[in-house]
Amino acid sequence: MKTAAIGVDIGGTGVKLALVSSSGRVLTRDTFATRDHAGREALLAELSRRIRGLADEGRRRGMRIAGAGVGAPGPIDVERGFVYFFPNIPGWKNAPIRSLLERRTGLPVRVDNDANAMALGESIFGAGRGARNLIALTLGTGIGGGIVMDGRLFHGPAYSAAEIGHIVINENGPKCGCGNRGCIETYVGNGHFVRAVRERLARGEKSILSRWVREGRELTPLLVARAADRGDRLAVDQWRITATRLGTVLAGLVNVLNPERIVLGGGIALNRKHIFPVVTQVLREKAFPIAARSVRVVPAALGTDAGTVGAAALVFASVPRSGKTGRRDS
Amino acid sequence: MKTAAIGVDIGGTGVKLALVSSSGRVLTRDTFATRDHAGREALLAELSRRIRGLADEGRRRGMRIAGAGVGAPGPIDVERGFVYFFPNIPGWKNAPIRSLLERRTGLPVRVDNDANAMALGESIFGAGRGARNLIALTLGTGIGGGIVMDGRLFHGPAYSAAEIGHIVINENGPKCGCGNRGCIETYVGNGHFVRAVRERLARGEKSILSRWVREGRELTPLLVARAADRGDRLAVDQWRITATRLGTVLAGLVNVLNPERIVLGGGIALNRKHIFPVVTQVLREKAFPIAARSVRVVPAALGTDAGTVGAAALVFASVPRSGKTGRRDS
Repeated sequence: MKTAAIGVDIGGTGVKLALVSSSGRVLTRDTFATRDHAGREALLAELSRRIRGLADEGRRRGMRIAGAGVGAPGPIDVERGFVYFFPNIPGWKNAPIRSLLERRTGLPVRVDNDANAMALGESIFGAGRGARNLIALTLGTGIGGGIVMDGRLFHGPAYSAAEIGHIVINENGPKCGCGNRGCIETYVGNGHFVRAVRERLARGEKSILSRWVREGRELTPLLVARAADRGDRLAVDQWRITATRLGTVLAGLVNVLNPERIVLGGGIALNRKHIFPVVTQVLREKAFPIAARSVRVVPAALGTDAGTVGAAALVFASVPRSGKTGRRDS
Repeated sequence: MKTAAIGVDIGGTGVKLALVSSSGRVLTRDTFATRDHAGREALLAELSRRIRGLADEGRRRGMRIAGAGVGAPGPIDVERGFVYFFPNIPGWKNAPIRSLLERRTGLPVRVDNDANAMALGESIFGAGRGARNLIALTLGTGIGGGIVMDGRLFHGPAYSAAEIGHIVINENGPKCGCGNRGCIETYVGNGHFVRAVRERLARGEKSILSRWVREGRELTPLLVARAADRGDRLAVDQWRITATRLGTVLAGLVNVLNPERIVLGGGIALNRKHIFPVVTQVLREKAFPIAARSVRVVPAALGTDAGTVGAAALVFASVPRSGKTGRRDS
């Protein structure tokens, strides 16, 4: 009998769900807008209904449903299945999300923060396959990170580890949302990237981007990538600056964690051509030779399914290989 | 029958050895100058002779000798007991130090780099007792670091992890010996500290240190601590700057590794009064609340025995609790 799990990726804007096979294949997708179900009770009811629906579909296909995994946008006590809070979704302070969902779905539920879930998903089903030790970074508005060591997610004793976006690279740098200064997130996140380009345009630097923006196109990392593809000097330069910074940070991280692989996902990393060669070169120059030689930097492979497949991976990683629905901690 | 191990701390200047009980007590110390035994063969012969001597003494005291642990000043393949190279001791490129010493001493031998050994020693016998997850930093000329996770040293797949001194805190900072710029080591190491004070004195800042230096006293972190103890403004300020930097770095590290304890040793940390309160305060301000609340910053407890006790701990950590001389990997 084939096994599947439900992967749930809760975001501030939307919730994505998927029925995922034990080989990581997405069999069915589902999605709804978070704000349409405001308040904890409404969101819980909708989540449970959708999870049960996907589980039913799996069973109709003759599959055993091993459980539901949830990737959540905030700090989680993984062992107790407990949400400390969601920064962008009200009503979830100190909520036992795992037991609440287990009661309503009848399925074993696993919960972790979304960045950890994505890291585990890439490690088992994506760009991290074959590596027992990896770091995964999602470069978006914020920078999410997950660390897999010896095949398991590294949570730290207070489940607060892997906040890689908040390593400091310049103690006098820009103020970060976390209260520190000069965190990676303030240098490599989408917001900083777009702001830096905008400032250069405002200073009168020549770039095709000025025209595109005047024509009403939105200034995004992707648009800057398009300009860089055409050889636009400002765009190429800004990507080089960003990739160099990212490489510098990763060099320090490689010196501490000595991973076999670094998986980069998210908007910034979509622009492979302008990111990966530079990051790899900077890493070779700046990390210790033994550690630098043993690591590869690769683009994330799960794309827009990364959240749901990663959440489903929380279930598969916690199920013994025999396929029983045991409840070991992942 | 009581058990003991020999701890060996190889340094560029001197080699320290000790007979260490299984409770971490130093029973006998021995030491010799590294340069008096130049070349690999001469150093090996002397190391083996001294190790055998301490083992004999332990046996005379009626103890079982579980093995010898070696803390070595360079990168080590821990599993194979293999030295890649020692930066400051010639003749040791790609040397199988473990098997060489086992053959000559008849004892099981464990090898790791000195910073890892110290971290393990503090974790088992020193300031880390009771914490399963800790970071230990030795603040000297360089900055050595070790990471203990779930009670075990974290090496990384290429045995190159925990080089905490080479996390970058300012990508445009001073050039570091490792090839990168703005590593912690360039900001918090002894060299930088003394240089910063010297520059301030040269610029004509008033300080009691000017007189002390004129009187022929050597400008060291300890001397600056003495001045700070008397309320000397420059000295107090320089300690504050250093402690703030250290706290900033530790905040980033705490966000990634979420340790229960951070153990600080070495010359800079000897000056507890001017370091620990500031570091703790900065950490509270800058790290994520959950992670910041779960960590304590404490001074190293093993003092000048840290190297040998840590090296002996490599043996005890690899011996099953029953006390047999099994050879599990530590």
